[in-house]
Amino acid sequence: MRIVIAPDSFKGSISAMDAAKAIENGVKRAGTNIETVLVPVADGGEGTLDSLVAATGGRRVQLQVLGPLGQPVLAEYGWLGDGKTCVIEMASASGLCLVPDEQKNPLQTTTYGTGELIRSALDEGCRQFILAIGGSATNDGGIGMLQALGMKLQDASGNQVGNSGGELGKIASIDDTGWDSRIAESTFLIASDVQNPFVGKKGASHVFGPQKGATPEMVELLDQYMTHWADVVEAKTGVHLHDLPGAGAAGGIGGAFQAFFPATMRRGIDIVIEFTGLRQALEGADAVITGEGQIDFQTASGKTPMGIAQEAQLKGIPTFVLAGSIGRGIEELYQYGITSIHSIVNGPMSLEEAMNRSAELLAQRAEQVIRTYQVHQTERR
Amino acid sequence: MRIVIAPDSFKGSISAMDAAKAIENGVKRAGTNIETVLVPVADGGEGTLDSLVAATGGRRVQLQVLGPLGQPVLAEYGWLGDGKTCVIEMASASGLCLVPDEQKNPLQTTTYGTGELIRSALDEGCRQFILAIGGSATNDGGIGMLQALGMKLQDASGNQVGNSGGELGKIASIDDTGWDSRIAESTFLIASDVQNPFVGKKGASHVFGPQKGATPEMVELLDQYMTHWADVVEAKTGVHLHDLPGAGAAGGIGGAFQAFFPATMRRGIDIVIEFTGLRQALEGADAVITGEGQIDFQTASGKTPMGIAQEAQLKGIPTFVLAGSIGRGIEELYQYGITSIHSIVNGPMSLEEAMNRSAELLAQRAEQVIRTYQVHQTERR
Repeated sequence: MRIVIAPDSFKGSISAMDAAKAIENGVKRAGTNIETVLVPVADGGEGTLDSLVAATGGRRVQLQVLGPLGQPVLAEYGWLGDGKTCVIEMASASGLCLVPDEQKNPLQTTTYGTGELIRSALDEGCRQFILAIGGSATNDGGIGMLQALGMKLQDASGNQVGNSGGELGKIASIDDTGWDSRIAESTFLIASDVQNPFVGKKGASHVFGPQKGATPEMVELLDQYMTHWADVVEAKTGVHLHDLPGAGAAGGIGGAFQAFFPATMRRGIDIVIEFTGLRQALEGADAVITGEGQIDFQTASGKTPMGIAQEAQLKGIPTFVLAGSIGRGIEELYQYGITSIHSIVNGPMSLEEAMNRSAELLAQRAEQVIRTYQVHQTERR
Repeated sequence: MRIVIAPDSFKGSISAMDAAKAIENGVKRAGTNIETVLVPVADGGEGTLDSLVAATGGRRVQLQVLGPLGQPVLAEYGWLGDGKTCVIEMASASGLCLVPDEQKNPLQTTTYGTGELIRSALDEGCRQFILAIGGSATNDGGIGMLQALGMKLQDASGNQVGNSGGELGKIASIDDTGWDSRIAESTFLIASDVQNPFVGKKGASHVFGPQKGATPEMVELLDQYMTHWADVVEAKTGVHLHDLPGAGAAGGIGGAFQAFFPATMRRGIDIVIEFTGLRQALEGADAVITGEGQIDFQTASGKTPMGIAQEAQLKGIPTFVLAGSIGRGIEELYQYGITSIHSIVNGPMSLEEAMNRSAELLAQRAEQVIRTYQVHQTERR
């Protein structure tokens, strides 16, 4: 029997790799004849770089870039084991986690550092990119990134504007003569589960601005600025970002990729499934165990267990989900191929205890699930 | 597919019958083609009367008897659906739960009320008894019960002694001329998992006296009294109770049954399996789900899930155990036929919340276990 073990991280508790190892311990206790394949995964958000680098035997590159508030930060990107593909996690350079709570203000933040990561990877010879754009602190329509890669954005007087969201309203023209020519030779795969348009009530500023620190007044201002910037982009490129699905991802960087890059957007978990080799690992497997901290009806929108179950279902393989906590609406998940869902908590306990004991609890639960699953193969006579 | 659902009660939370119904709800959600058989069970202790009466469609008889402290209590016994067998739960008449904490004192308590229950059932025509002797408040060597059934116990002056543990040391002779003759025409099946002898360091007074309120001094006194009483019994009957395994059960009432009754002792869960019809229900079943509040290494000593798993294993049927809480040492249980063990708790929560939500949680967990188990029958192609 071969079991593929492909958990996400349990946020705040255990990394995807350590979770996979713990699950493997439990699975091995359930039977000596069980072969395991460990593929720690992520859904295109935090942990995507870890997952892709670990699964492919790749390496990390660290460098100092401009952080979201213009401060220097030590960021990183990863080379996959294929030696051709780089994975860039936007949060590493321009993430909300890099901004202290009291300084959260999307008028002030920039994606410049993300552009620097891309430039560094281009310098190293990379022409094939995966961009994980979750967790950004920005609402700059991607202008910081564009500037870092050579785009000149000028106001009505011909002066270059700054690189944050608050500058968007001033932009009168785009000068692409300095634009990095290596970008056109490259491919950019954007991992994003977001279908929001660039502007409007469902746009970047209205939907994601508040969690990045925007007051209601800032949201209105940013949406006006973003509309102005979309007009300027359309005049330059012919691309109408305003209501384009996905253009509103990560403060509008999704739109910048669509207007100026040879870019394709795909669901994060699907990119992870492809580039970790999980798809191949599932071939001929008897079951897959996945998991993450919380499972509920929201899991249906592109979260890890969901994406894995859909892939496994195509191959007729059952998917068992381990979770720290089971919320409402899990019955919605069966139709996508999830076979069964199991909390790792083994009795009344606090969240803190469950988090501290996650490795032990993952192993115990995985063992019980596989003991239940394999009855027909080993115990029936 | 046919699933037998045979949980014990989850103490303090949900009765065995309600637990069985909750599990059934979950199992039915896992598949429309699943037939269920509900057999709520008990391990020979508290709930045995409920289980046997419910499983066989029997009835209850209530009557007032002498409680453990000599006070009147409303007790009950049950007729099984066969119309021949009565089940008597000693705790109903002589239980520790009938004694306020501050009055716990095994020098003062009596099994007289248990004898009255037997007498009443004899009056009703019963000649086939099941005695569940768990949870007693007594250390009277069974003398209260014997007196209620006509035995005269006299001191050296020929006066009748009282009926509590403190009287045992005075008994000089036994006059059985008034002994209820119908007892010899009857059978008594004693449900007990206890192998302790009548006296000594592993005897009734030393091992069980303290939990019934005996101080260290009382324990020594009671053990001396019990030794004296065993000598008197041996002089009368030839039965040497002193080191007889099981004679120390329930404050020595186990020994009284062995000396004066046509009695057989068996493990409680085995009696329940036989008289509830669980053995027949397991014939041809695909799986059995059992459970109780806490599962740990102690479950190996005659608890419900254990007994059921041993029975199911004989028939090649997997046993899935649901528990409120999983403790240490569960790996010891697999050898007895337990297939897998699952906590019903579905995330970090308090004991109180888990108890309040037990029906919902039992249903959810049972559903997930059966979804996992039935993969091979329904989802593999």
